Amino acid sequence: MDKIQLAHGGGGKLTDELIDQVILKYLPRPAVLLDSAILETDGTAIAFTTDSYVVSPIFFPGGDVGKMAVFGTCNDLAMAGAVPVSLSLALIIEEGFEIEKLERIMQSVGLAAKEAEVTIVTGDTKVVAYGQADGIYINTAGIGRVISGADIGFNRIEEGDKILLSGTIGDHGLAIMAKREGLSFSTPIVSDVASVAGLANELIRKLGGKVKFLRDPTRAGLAGVLVDIASNTRREIFIQERAIPVKPGVKAGAEVLGFEVLDVANEGKFVAVVKDDAIEEALEICRKHPLGKAASVIGTVHQTSSSGRVVMETLIGGKRIVQKPYGEQLPRIC
Amino acid sequence: MDKIQLAHGGGGKLTDELIDQVILKYLPRPAVLLDSAILETDGTAIAFTTDSYVVSPIFFPGGDVGKMAVFGTCNDLAMAGAVPVSLSLALIIEEGFEIEKLERIMQSVGLAAKEAEVTIVTGDTKVVAYGQADGIYINTAGIGRVISGADIGFNRIEEGDKILLSGTIGDHGLAIMAKREGLSFSTPIVSDVASVAGLANELIRKLGGKVKFLRDPTRAGLAGVLVDIASNTRREIFIQERAIPVKPGVKAGAEVLGFEVLDVANEGKFVAVVKDDAIEEALEICRKHPLGKAASVIGTVHQTSSSGRVVMETLIGGKRIVQKPYGEQLPRIC
Repeated sequence: MDKIQLAHGGGGKLTDELIDQVILKYLPRPAVLLDSAILETDGTAIAFTTDSYVVSPIFFPGGDVGKMAVFGTCNDLAMAGAVPVSLSLALIIEEGFEIEKLERIMQSVGLAAKEAEVTIVTGDTKVVAYGQADGIYINTAGIGRVISGADIGFNRIEEGDKILLSGTIGDHGLAIMAKREGLSFSTPIVSDVASVAGLANELIRKLGGKVKFLRDPTRAGLAGVLVDIASNTRREIFIQERAIPVKPGVKAGAEVLGFEVLDVANEGKFVAVVKDDAIEEALEICRKHPLGKAASVIGTVHQTSSSGRVVMETLIGGKRIVQKPYGEQLPRIC
Repeated sequence: MDKIQLAHGGGGKLTDELIDQVILKYLPRPAVLLDSAILETDGTAIAFTTDSYVVSPIFFPGGDVGKMAVFGTCNDLAMAGAVPVSLSLALIIEEGFEIEKLERIMQSVGLAAKEAEVTIVTGDTKVVAYGQADGIYINTAGIGRVISGADIGFNRIEEGDKILLSGTIGDHGLAIMAKREGLSFSTPIVSDVASVAGLANELIRKLGGKVKFLRDPTRAGLAGVLVDIASNTRREIFIQERAIPVKPGVKAGAEVLGFEVLDVANEGKFVAVVKDDAIEEALEICRKHPLGKAASVIGTVHQTSSSGRVVMETLIGGKRIVQKPYGEQLPRIC
């Protein structure tokens, strides 16, 4: 394989390989590129993250690329146990892009920043020739203030910990695909794009280190997050399919389009690994929050297996291994 | 004008208009997107910046897009009076891009990060379909630690302050254009891409608040920086053409290609506004540094004029007003 394939961007195994074997190869060791890095500055811990948003179409039911760019980066900060504070905004715009669309996107950026209580403090605008981009790509980087008492990391996960999912899965990916394919369902599928920082921050403020790990299931979906947890902890993650909330319309849409909903991207959900004795309180906190009403305890961390794996008890009572998607299930989903 | 033009990305007047009239319009007021923002966190001041690099060609004499992405962001931090500490790295790669090229770029990123003593701590990799990018675009955001005693801002500039330029101008822009046009000169023109953070940091450590303003003349070149200083301070900036160092090959190249060298992008230079009584020391510090050997005092801040302007005494003793380039002189120069 000597050329980049779309699948390299899918967030699945092939992305992991590209990052491990090419991107990290020349960086000083031990090189790790985290969703959010934690930096210590004179006793203050700050989180730092970046994401580019290349979603297509740029306007979709429930949001647009501008809203995603703000909320997605807020979510990455929140997953590191931080309160989002400041964002950068870097635009790469294709020649010929309608300025009216740019206005709509910026309006959306402004509203999202206000809602998420972040300030956009630095920016960059580049223009490339017609045919050298697809409308607009947006990068946001973000800085957050790590909450006192936050202690997030794969290394803290133990046997008996519970897996909490903050809401339904598949909404974003299916909304994008339905729009892209020109499909309409009797119940419209709407992206879940939202900042979950408020809820995730509240969990940490109330439960401190009992919240052991947080991750938002974007590219590669819930499956991607669970497999990452299993492989990094070398434990078995046991989940129950019936506990995973999926809206009926999303479920139907996934079936029509042939997608495994576990692999589909989300933009307003998170997975939390919580200490057993705090899981009821965590669930209660979530369910009282507008973005956590459908929160559910979907599984448990089991004993160490040789290399880590995710086992799902299916709806009909069987068991199957959940795999991380290999490559590109849905190109340009985020 | 209802569509984005290449000129909107040139860093000139049209870019300013786009930012003022569209991009900032919907952000909470007072919205300003600085090259680098300064954030206060519990008494520690950090600088935060972002830039996307869409340079074409991605490999050019003296560097490549990876080296630029690291050094350019270090430079933006240094211009805010900060020591670069941590960078993010976000790649947007076109399907079909040769992995060997990605390896060369990452090698360059790694070497540049080592040289600039920054750590790349967080990243993102997106892939877009063939024809939706032009090879690779890289965004880096950066965090720096503001040096104690640094006090950088247009508002500190006064009559009598001197304008220091750290070295020759035009090298980067001409190197890119020569490569793009397939021109070769008897003396090859090589980009000046470098991190000037070490030198700029040293100036501030030694001269503190006597260094009143710093800016690297990238897009829109030296003219862009000087006009920004004049219009933001509403003063006259008086410069002497003979004091501006330009390599003979660059000068010849600019003439052949029809470029005004003042407008051409640089990637390893900076302009400093320095208090009169510290200018000799500043010049000495620069000239002892490998990246400041050709440093020169190019002008003086004069009395307030109604709207600010830049006046240049030409080589033949005449005077002319220096304007900021309108739009896109050199597309995708950085």
